[in-house]
Amino acid sequence: MSLADDLRALDIEVLTEDLHAWGHDETMDLHESASLVARPRTTEQVAAVLRAAHAAKVPVTPRGGGTGKAGSCIPTPGGIVLSVDRMDRIKEIDPLDRYAVVEPGVVLWNLHEEAAKHDLWYPVDMSSGGSCLIGGNVACDAGGERAVKYGTTRAQITGVEAVLMDGTVIRSGGKLAKNVAGYALHHLLIGSEGTLGVITEITLKLVPLPPYRRTLLAAFEELDTACDAALALDGSGLGPSAIEFIEQPAVQLAQEMAGEKLPHADAAALLLVELEGFREDDADREIEQAAEVLFEAGARDVDLAKREQVWGVRHTVAEAIKALPGYSAVDAVVPRRRLPDLVRTAHAAAKENGIEVVCFGHAGDGNLHIDFIRRDADDPHWEQAMPKAVQRVLAFTVEAGGSITAEHGVGLLRKADMPMQFDAGTLAAMRALKQAWDPDGLLNPDKVLPDA
Amino acid sequence: MSLADDLRALDIEVLTEDLHAWGHDETMDLHESASLVARPRTTEQVAAVLRAAHAAKVPVTPRGGGTGKAGSCIPTPGGIVLSVDRMDRIKEIDPLDRYAVVEPGVVLWNLHEEAAKHDLWYPVDMSSGGSCLIGGNVACDAGGERAVKYGTTRAQITGVEAVLMDGTVIRSGGKLAKNVAGYALHHLLIGSEGTLGVITEITLKLVPLPPYRRTLLAAFEELDTACDAALALDGSGLGPSAIEFIEQPAVQLAQEMAGEKLPHADAAALLLVELEGFREDDADREIEQAAEVLFEAGARDVDLAKREQVWGVRHTVAEAIKALPGYSAVDAVVPRRRLPDLVRTAHAAAKENGIEVVCFGHAGDGNLHIDFIRRDADDPHWEQAMPKAVQRVLAFTVEAGGSITAEHGVGLLRKADMPMQFDAGTLAAMRALKQAWDPDGLLNPDKVLPDA
Repeated sequence: MSLADDLRALDIEVLTEDLHAWGHDETMDLHESASLVARPRTTEQVAAVLRAAHAAKVPVTPRGGGTGKAGSCIPTPGGIVLSVDRMDRIKEIDPLDRYAVVEPGVVLWNLHEEAAKHDLWYPVDMSSGGSCLIGGNVACDAGGERAVKYGTTRAQITGVEAVLMDGTVIRSGGKLAKNVAGYALHHLLIGSEGTLGVITEITLKLVPLPPYRRTLLAAFEELDTACDAALALDGSGLGPSAIEFIEQPAVQLAQEMAGEKLPHADAAALLLVELEGFREDDADREIEQAAEVLFEAGARDVDLAKREQVWGVRHTVAEAIKALPGYSAVDAVVPRRRLPDLVRTAHAAAKENGIEVVCFGHAGDGNLHIDFIRRDADDPHWEQAMPKAVQRVLAFTVEAGGSITAEHGVGLLRKADMPMQFDAGTLAAMRALKQAWDPDGLLNPDKVLPDA
Repeated sequence: MSLADDLRALDIEVLTEDLHAWGHDETMDLHESASLVARPRTTEQVAAVLRAAHAAKVPVTPRGGGTGKAGSCIPTPGGIVLSVDRMDRIKEIDPLDRYAVVEPGVVLWNLHEEAAKHDLWYPVDMSSGGSCLIGGNVACDAGGERAVKYGTTRAQITGVEAVLMDGTVIRSGGKLAKNVAGYALHHLLIGSEGTLGVITEITLKLVPLPPYRRTLLAAFEELDTACDAALALDGSGLGPSAIEFIEQPAVQLAQEMAGEKLPHADAAALLLVELEGFREDDADREIEQAAEVLFEAGARDVDLAKREQVWGVRHTVAEAIKALPGYSAVDAVVPRRRLPDLVRTAHAAAKENGIEVVCFGHAGDGNLHIDFIRRDADDPHWEQAMPKAVQRVLAFTVEAGGSITAEHGVGLLRKADMPMQFDAGTLAAMRALKQAWDPDGLLNPDKVLPDA
């Protein structure tokens, strides 16, 4: 019997044809062909898939919603895709203790919706929320817009069940605010991009859903002033739930692509700010206080704008980039005071190499999305120039004490760049952990860790 | 030359006599004798100690302030104590980005003091703050009173440098709010109690220091009401920075030992609540709102009391227990809704075994310190009865989905109890990680992981 037949005999859904859609994520130009897609529905079925693959020495790549931007779920050619999309149950929402227990295939916004029924919230949010899966969020430690207040996915996760490559089921953590029994295996799994284990159940904290949100849009004449203002606001004690940054070239690209006029398109940089409140008068007072902080920090204009308007600007920029024939995103993060230098370096790198770049991101976290863009799909220059510009930005990022990826992950895209950030000893320590749990290197091989 | 001479030749401070004080922490009855104490001052010296020990196959136990309550830093008999107390520099405080870089030997409250000069705060706090070292806090993922708002030590740490048993120096993380490059080695090290690596540098977040604090003391007629009120307050959106719990027998023991009358000593349970604010009127308004939440949740009395008074009650209880001839602390954590059942189980266990127990702890986290106490040092019954009572409480904790240690650690004290909480597969996965970085089992051996 074939592997596919073996798995079907265990009642596991298996696909062996028309697998193209399972071969890529949202990273430009990456695609590989798996031989088989398994869609287990239970932890036992996940373990059965892994045991069978382990016995047959076939590589397995776990897959969430396929919304990644670093190729973390691109299959090994001829290998197995283990999709968790059928494990989509919200097993429990505890409205008193404020925890949820979910399977990895739950769509992010489905959890938001269920939690809201109890006036609760899972405070991780991002533009892919309608299709990304929580298992993928955990595997990649997804960040998003609210990390400045709530932290990334890691900060919400208190327990994980996972299956190792040999089929061993492990459990770490629980519905617990504190817990120091044994090694924090769930923290090792978070952000390991499916290379150490397949996550089969997640316990996560929920927070009270703030009924009031207030947003504002601030325009600055100078890049440095905008970045300093972001730091001042985050240090004000007001606890903003988002401080997003967009530089002028990004706003102008968006205007051009969308054919609509955006507010303050002449400003050097914009900040988009959101605050939350549990009482309407508190929310109103605090957004006024935030506006004062931004004015004092040098804002030219501060508009107390509607939420849809403010986030609309951000989404128009993101959509404009996606609509281009080509782009290459660098997901850099630096200590926040270095953000203006990072923006300037991105533009110097683009200019030097004769291409275009636009920058936007999460100013409250020092996380900048630097998109080198291509307007002409046939321009041969871009293919040569872009990697050089990317390398210059990554080199600056590491030199500034930053990281080559803040929230997209290493996957295939940044694997070769890892030695820029980590010395040989640290990479060897990472490889030793991989080796300990997956000595044959079968679980999502060739991701994250560069070759020794 | 002896190992001591070898290390001295490298300019490393070595002690070989009068080592009694290095053989224990604050866990009752635990003591072992090391042959040598090394007090390196640099990462290079730490690596030299480990390389020398590795070559000589001598076990090494890292040591912070010796304030642990689970025996995590008790030396292996005849082994080396590697004390980080001489590595006590605060290397950097960045008031703009709000990070600090510290050596592991910095006393917790020294960091508080330095940060306060910049109106910043490291929001981990506990009663041992005047002597515990931050390296130990990180190695044990210290919790404390403010974890309900800020999380435990883990939530503050964004980067670590550490040395593995073979002398390899690894670096993970940095002054970064988001970072997903490679495995989160610092998160594996946090809470590993010095069994995986010796932490030599720590990068941590600082938060704006709230200038206003308000406290209140709430008295309840019923245990269940008090625990429900704690959950209601934490879910109110007010963001309390402490919700501490003391049950009546603990208050009464404290009255008796201290010989002073404590407020509401007749109530079944007390909650101690603290809130912080950045504006005086906000702080005043919010503590009134907190009082309302507690009244609505069934509090009998709510006193807007002075900070010293409120925390004074808590410290009197802790001191009363320490002054007894004997006690054995269980540091249990359960999903918060199970807290009343945990208190009741503790009393049932004490009664069944003919001993006394008092409970207090961090209600906002579901973390209860259950102290079985001994008033007569010569009572032979206690030695037999206490372990049975402890086992009953631990069994309930695990059955309720909890953890056998919330913030004290496993160390030697709870090592044998680990199989209650973890199945064989999970323990094997932990052992595989230990084996990967320390194949000879020389770094703090016999801690955390039970024998296979």
